[in-house]
Amino acid sequence: MGNGIDEWIASKEEMLKTWRRELHQIAEVGFCEYETTYYIVQQLAELGFTLHTGQAVMEGDARFGVPSADELAAHEQRARDNGVPADFLAGMSGGFTGVVAVLDTGKAGKHTAMRFDIDALPILEEADAVHLPAKEGFRSRNEGMMHACGHDGHATIGLGIAHFIAERKEELKGTYTLIFQPAEEGSRGANAVVKKGWLDGVDQFLSGHLGIRPNPVGTLYSGSTHILATTKIDASFTGKTAHAGMEPHVGKNALLAASSAVLNLHSIAPHGEGATRLNVGRFEAGSGRNIVPGDAFLQFETRGITTEQNHYMKEEAVRRLEGAALMYDVAIDYAIVGEGLAAETDAYFLEKIPKATASSHYITDVHDRMEVNGSEDVTYMMQHVQEQGGLACYMIFGTPLAAGHHHKRFDWDEGALAVAVSALAHILAHE
Amino acid sequence: MGNGIDEWIASKEEMLKTWRRELHQIAEVGFCEYETTYYIVQQLAELGFTLHTGQAVMEGDARFGVPSADELAAHEQRARDNGVPADFLAGMSGGFTGVVAVLDTGKAGKHTAMRFDIDALPILEEADAVHLPAKEGFRSRNEGMMHACGHDGHATIGLGIAHFIAERKEELKGTYTLIFQPAEEGSRGANAVVKKGWLDGVDQFLSGHLGIRPNPVGTLYSGSTHILATTKIDASFTGKTAHAGMEPHVGKNALLAASSAVLNLHSIAPHGEGATRLNVGRFEAGSGRNIVPGDAFLQFETRGITTEQNHYMKEEAVRRLEGAALMYDVAIDYAIVGEGLAAETDAYFLEKIPKATASSHYITDVHDRMEVNGSEDVTYMMQHVQEQGGLACYMIFGTPLAAGHHHKRFDWDEGALAVAVSALAHILAHE
Amino acid sequence: MGNGIDEWIASKEEMLKTWRRELHQIAEVGFCEYETTYYIVQQLAELGFTLHTGQAVMEGDARFGVPSADELAAHEQRARDNGVPADFLAGMSGGFTGVVAVLDTGKAGKHTAMRFDIDALPILEEADAVHLPAKEGFRSRNEGMMHACGHDGHATIGLGIAHFIAERKEELKGTYTLIFQPAEEGSRGANAVVKKGWLDGVDQFLSGHLGIRPNPVGTLYSGSTHILATTKIDASFTGKTAHAGMEPHVGKNALLAASSAVLNLHSIAPHGEGATRLNVGRFEAGSGRNIVPGDAFLQFETRGITTEQNHYMKEEAVRRLEGAALMYDVAIDYAIVGEGLAAETDAYFLEKIPKATASSHYITDVHDRMEVNGSEDVTYMMQHVQEQGGLACYMIFGTPLAAGHHHKRFDWDEGALAVAVSALAHILAHE
Amino acid sequence: MGNGIDEWIASKEEMLKTWRRELHQIAEVGFCEYETTYYIVQQLAELGFTLHTGQAVMEGDARFGVPSADELAAHEQRARDNGVPADFLAGMSGGFTGVVAVLDTGKAGKHTAMRFDIDALPILEEADAVHLPAKEGFRSRNEGMMHACGHDGHATIGLGIAHFIAERKEELKGTYTLIFQPAEEGSRGANAVVKKGWLDGVDQFLSGHLGIRPNPVGTLYSGSTHILATTKIDASFTGKTAHAGMEPHVGKNALLAASSAVLNLHSIAPHGEGATRLNVGRFEAGSGRNIVPGDAFLQFETRGITTEQNHYMKEEAVRRLEGAALMYDVAIDYAIVGEGLAAETDAYFLEKIPKATASSHYITDVHDRMEVNGSEDVTYMMQHVQEQGGLACYMIFGTPLAAGHHHKRFDWDEGALAVAVSALAHILAHE
Repeated sequence: MGNGIDEWIASKEEMLKTWRRELHQIAEVGFCEYETTYYIVQQLAELGFTLHTGQAVMEGDARFGVPSADELAAHEQRARDNGVPADFLAGMSGGFTGVVAVLDTGKAGKHTAMRFDIDALPILEEADAVHLPAKEGFRSRNEGMMHACGHDGHATIGLGIAHFIAERKEELKGTYTLIFQPAEEGSRGANAVVKKGWLDGVDQFLSGHLGIRPNPVGTLYSGSTHILATTKIDASFTGKTAHAGMEPHVGKNALLAASSAVLNLHSIAPHGEGATRLNVGRFEAGSGRNIVPGDAFLQFETRGITTEQNHYMKEEAVRRLEGAALMYDVAIDYAIVGEGLAAETDAYFLEKIPKATASSHYITDVHDRMEVNGSEDVTYMMQHVQEQGGLACYMIFGTPLAAGHHHKRFDWDEGALAVAVSALAHILAHE
Repeated sequence: MGNGIDEWIASKEEMLKTWRRELHQIAEVGFCEYETTYYIVQQLAELGFTLHTGQAVMEGDARFGVPSADELAAHEQRARDNGVPADFLAGMSGGFTGVVAVLDTGKAGKHTAMRFDIDALPILEEADAVHLPAKEGFRSRNEGMMHACGHDGHATIGLGIAHFIAERKEELKGTYTLIFQPAEEGSRGANAVVKKGWLDGVDQFLSGHLGIRPNPVGTLYSGSTHILATTKIDASFTGKTAHAGMEPHVGKNALLAASSAVLNLHSIAPHGEGATRLNVGRFEAGSGRNIVPGDAFLQFETRGITTEQNHYMKEEAVRRLEGAALMYDVAIDYAIVGEGLAAETDAYFLEKIPKATASSHYITDVHDRMEVNGSEDVTYMMQHVQEQGGLACYMIFGTPLAAGHHHKRFDWDEGALAVAVSALAHILAHE
Repeated sequence: MGNGIDEWIASKEEMLKTWRRELHQIAEVGFCEYETTYYIVQQLAELGFTLHTGQAVMEGDARFGVPSADELAAHEQRARDNGVPADFLAGMSGGFTGVVAVLDTGKAGKHTAMRFDIDALPILEEADAVHLPAKEGFRSRNEGMMHACGHDGHATIGLGIAHFIAERKEELKGTYTLIFQPAEEGSRGANAVVKKGWLDGVDQFLSGHLGIRPNPVGTLYSGSTHILATTKIDASFTGKTAHAGMEPHVGKNALLAASSAVLNLHSIAPHGEGATRLNVGRFEAGSGRNIVPGDAFLQFETRGITTEQNHYMKEEAVRRLEGAALMYDVAIDYAIVGEGLAAETDAYFLEKIPKATASSHYITDVHDRMEVNGSEDVTYMMQHVQEQGGLACYMIFGTPLAAGHHHKRFDWDEGALAVAVSALAHILAHE
Repeated sequence: MGNGIDEWIASKEEMLKTWRRELHQIAEVGFCEYETTYYIVQQLAELGFTLHTGQAVMEGDARFGVPSADELAAHEQRARDNGVPADFLAGMSGGFTGVVAVLDTGKAGKHTAMRFDIDALPILEEADAVHLPAKEGFRSRNEGMMHACGHDGHATIGLGIAHFIAERKEELKGTYTLIFQPAEEGSRGANAVVKKGWLDGVDQFLSGHLGIRPNPVGTLYSGSTHILATTKIDASFTGKTAHAGMEPHVGKNALLAASSAVLNLHSIAPHGEGATRLNVGRFEAGSGRNIVPGDAFLQFETRGITTEQNHYMKEEAVRRLEGAALMYDVAIDYAIVGEGLAAETDAYFLEKIPKATASSHYITDVHDRMEVNGSEDVTYMMQHVQEQGGLACYMIFGTPLAAGHHHKRFDWDEGALAVAVSALAHILAHE
């Protein structure tokens, strides 16, 4: 059934590039992908998929780190100004972005789910021509938001494979669920998709990422390991301001409490049974130089090579927040604003994918597994599928990188889009 | 010569209140007092003083913590929008605010200088009617800037005593220099006035402050002690970002360096010979939760009961910044953005003022000296005068306080204005 | 009645020197002054005082920081070996050292109490001839214990004034209570003497110290100020050891908890209303380099210019210990092992003493008050007397100093002994 | 050639137990194994090995962490008191302990080296009968020193295999070098043996450890992985003492510098490419509670899964020491007192050992490799052999454990001795 796949893909290469560049220009941060969702729906409209949007996509309460009502409203206004129809927008109101597209071939067969994350980052994209999107005119039009992690590519791959399924639906069997997931950054959206039931009964789950580490176009990793379990925590210390010269003893110093917390968070002992991580990435505190600071805010994350080891880090971290607050007699309030699990690609795919893709001219070099050493909330989906007896895979699609992920000059080779679609198409065809 | 002073002041009470309320509404932060300067010049115009503005007021390079060119330009635009004539504004361009008003009686006599600070704070003033300026309609029209330290009152007192001098110039002797000083907050402006020479040859220097601690209207302190020497420092740590999960060892963690600096700054040993203070009032660091933070910024101040003790604190603080930077292999860059000295009111005034003010009905209760335990850059002027053999005084004018200094509901009793003008007038008349 | 005092003292100078040198050689630390107590009792035996020793001197439970039973037993054995009779020693068993000597003249008059502290320090005395006691053969025979704070002199002054009272008892009126107090170092003994009732009903309390700062012999300060209130705390953190390479996460790191406590103790904000101090003077933790440390021990002290300000420091310190322990999930156990109050010499003495001592040839230079800036548990006695309406005084007896207090080469000029006895004698005679 | 090995070992089981218990009683810390060395020499005397002792064993300057001359002298005196002949002792003077025993069969063949570490730990052994050595009368007679890591067993295994070689020398080929190494604890002795040339030209290197983790007797691991590279550092901070109440600003606080160092050492970022460790195991600082501490001493270690990663930790650690010292203006002096490398057992042994030991009844369960996650200076020998093209192996001999390594109740099953000798004997016989 693999006949003609590469030829078909070759005919779509211009389309893939167009989708990618249009998506790149409407970069939107997590739970605010209003323009992006509308765009995806437009591209999928005629293909025969049943499209689910709005509150059908995610269980609202299971989302982590949803922006404030004010922020959401501002983003909705922006989307309206940029042409998203009011009634479509109304359906997504409150951060209910994303699309689930389902196609049942009507023939007995596996239920295959695929996930493509669609959110961007709060980064001001490079405007200098040294950066290809700037040079070639497809830099983000949403200033301060940028696809700096390749999710524009992931959504494009999803559109590509959707077209493939639509065109080959006579030959294919079983059911196909394509999840265009909001808010992967910060590990915030996947859990809410799982809780809505979209992964229930899935036999085979396919997902992947562009890049991670630089590789030539044509490189494919059949799976991954060392996706770290992670917890994202926001912590606020609230003390009491006072004049620092006249009555320093009256203050309750939240900035000092937070500084002490930082040092003691970073000195949590590593776990003897596998790698752990902690990073305090943001610190904001105080108002004026001569005022004992009454407030402090930290953003940090823990990670562990397994869910258990991340749990150890989280427990230790929370105790340290509480201890630091006690020291300085300030209140501590913390919230878990994101969480990801550890998960492994099933060994099944390490055998299957090299065989399935052997005939593809796009794929020149297949490796076993990449050590990711980062976090991904796709793990909620992988774990849910595996717990039900299904099989889950997280591939890596090779590409050179102009700069590291999350950098304002991050860019990659659009040739990797055809490789990724080819890989997925060959896997689907190889049943 | 004290005859009729109280009566004259009684006739001016409404005028004092009007000045104060108009000044309150045009609150402007240090070196941005464009509207305020114009207002003062208008009120002084007809009195016979020679008025000096623009670059004549301050030595440009001796100013501490001047806002950036962008910030100054934005404030100049705001002043223009609010009606300050373009040519007058042009004379102040670049943060050259403030007024020096000089009147020479033509008769031999002392050269008396007086200082009135005119800047406000970057505080959003309370809008609720519980706050008198909000209730009575004279809340700051410059949103985000507020007279929360009484300098609107100080400028008003300056206008009042200017009118007194003008009306009594036939009776008075010697020369009178009234300094309407910018940027007292942060101890940034006084040094530049001194360096311009305005205190050279001054025999007697009078200044003061409303409030400090709550007292009934009518209370007067003839001087002050424990004005703390101070240094204001901004410190930037610059390290190197890295992905916190994949390659934490590659980062140079500026946030950790700054946190360590904070704890070790606050553990500088107190000086055995008198009170010292240190306060880190602001901390900002990092970009994203999963990025090893490559930058961190601290704002802090040191204080000492004497200039020497503040020097000890400053030296220790700088060494700790350097040590923290060395620990984490990050660069440290710091700037002194404000500085104040210690100074004492001369004992001469503790005798003179009670006598001079004995006949005032406004002044009901005269004390010796108040312990300030705060900092004031008026000390540059006091010390300069004293070093030349002159005498210097810093009075406190009693008033109840609705909330502490620098609080968004800070307010005081306008009755204190007449008391202050009465005190100064009686002192001038009592030669 | 002052007639002949100086002449009498002149006749005793050799005796003073002998007492001092013999006491110096039997230096003993607090609550272990077994030889010293016996020596004092021997010298007072024939003078007509009623002598109280053993459990009559101090309320046992009100003593702070009593050595362990093993340590006390070792010191008792040492005293036995050095010739203290077994039955006398038995009366002091368990750290009940010190002497209270009372003489009632039988005539109506003031009840005057005087206090002389008698303990030494755990310091190995300099053996080189550069140190006078070594050169002249009266270095401490109790190795590792040394009179490095002048209490050998204080006890000598007490013996001197006891002889004066005994010889002049016909001329004197009222009652005289001489307290030879144990364990002043660490502020451990005075409270227990007060609790036993020895200061009840006292009208006039006299005490003092040699040195503090170097001054010529003949200098007398009629009182003192800035005796700091203080609390002495021992803190033990107990966690759990673990192999640092294999299972670091299993340990509960007491050393890290204590290190964090130290930094955060030293960053307690100074009190705005007067000087405060904190010093962690000892840190011991851990067993081996490759073991997560399961135990840590800190010795520290807080001080404040008033009892209230010391209380603030103590409260803050205890909270920080608890917070540090919570951070690292270790147990914290702390004990107050010493405490001293703030106290001021009554102004009465600043007038009286210069007059009373005016005729003494020994006293050449009388000052008002010295700022001590150290702590002394004599304050328990001063405060108790003052609370009952009595008057209390803490003088300073001037002497040059060979090295600072608590230094292994500390030494002073024995000429100060006559000055001190002369001062006390003239005060007693001047009623 | 494996015929009869198990029978021969069975005949030696009592002897093994006797050696072990006698060695256990003369436990001695590193470089002080005077009695132990003498004992080993006695047991090897008649076997035909050439015995090298004294300065022939180790390159003196390449030893890490040699005790002070005073400590060595005290240990030598103890050994003399315990019966080591004066002339034998003289040959080891200055910490030149250990034995190298060489037997050349005279036949062409491999040069096989084996290493047995012989030192004990500074631990007071459990005296309660709950501890088998106490119950059965072979507790350490050298109070405060204890074989709490099984090196008594290792030395016993060495004696056992020496007897095996001696008895079978007609059948064996090549050369056998048995190294009884001093001072493994703290990674101090192996480097000095290598530098003396004892591993030059070795083809096959065998070594191992009892226990590590509890396993049944009969368990054998054919090799090990994750022996961590390590560096042992002693750091001394030297500041300046001062009276904490009177002149805290005069002190240079070494205790605070060390506390700050500890927190910042423990917050060195983990290496992204493999496990790293740091442990501050000892902290001693200060003299008295009221003295600003002028000295502080830390003992710590770094580790890394590779030598490169340990190097990263060491570099970071040293910079933090220097930064902490700079912060507090104290001097820092540090010394590397031990160092170990990372090393891996060659895969060759993972195949060979199961085959070679297949016929042993003592060995019931052979595993591939154990993850050690601890450090061992045997790695100097392994790396040296491997760099010359030889093969190196570090086995683990299973035994239940009464308590963890380095615990005062550490004990193991003496049945493991026969297993270990059987394993080595079968390997030697299997050429």
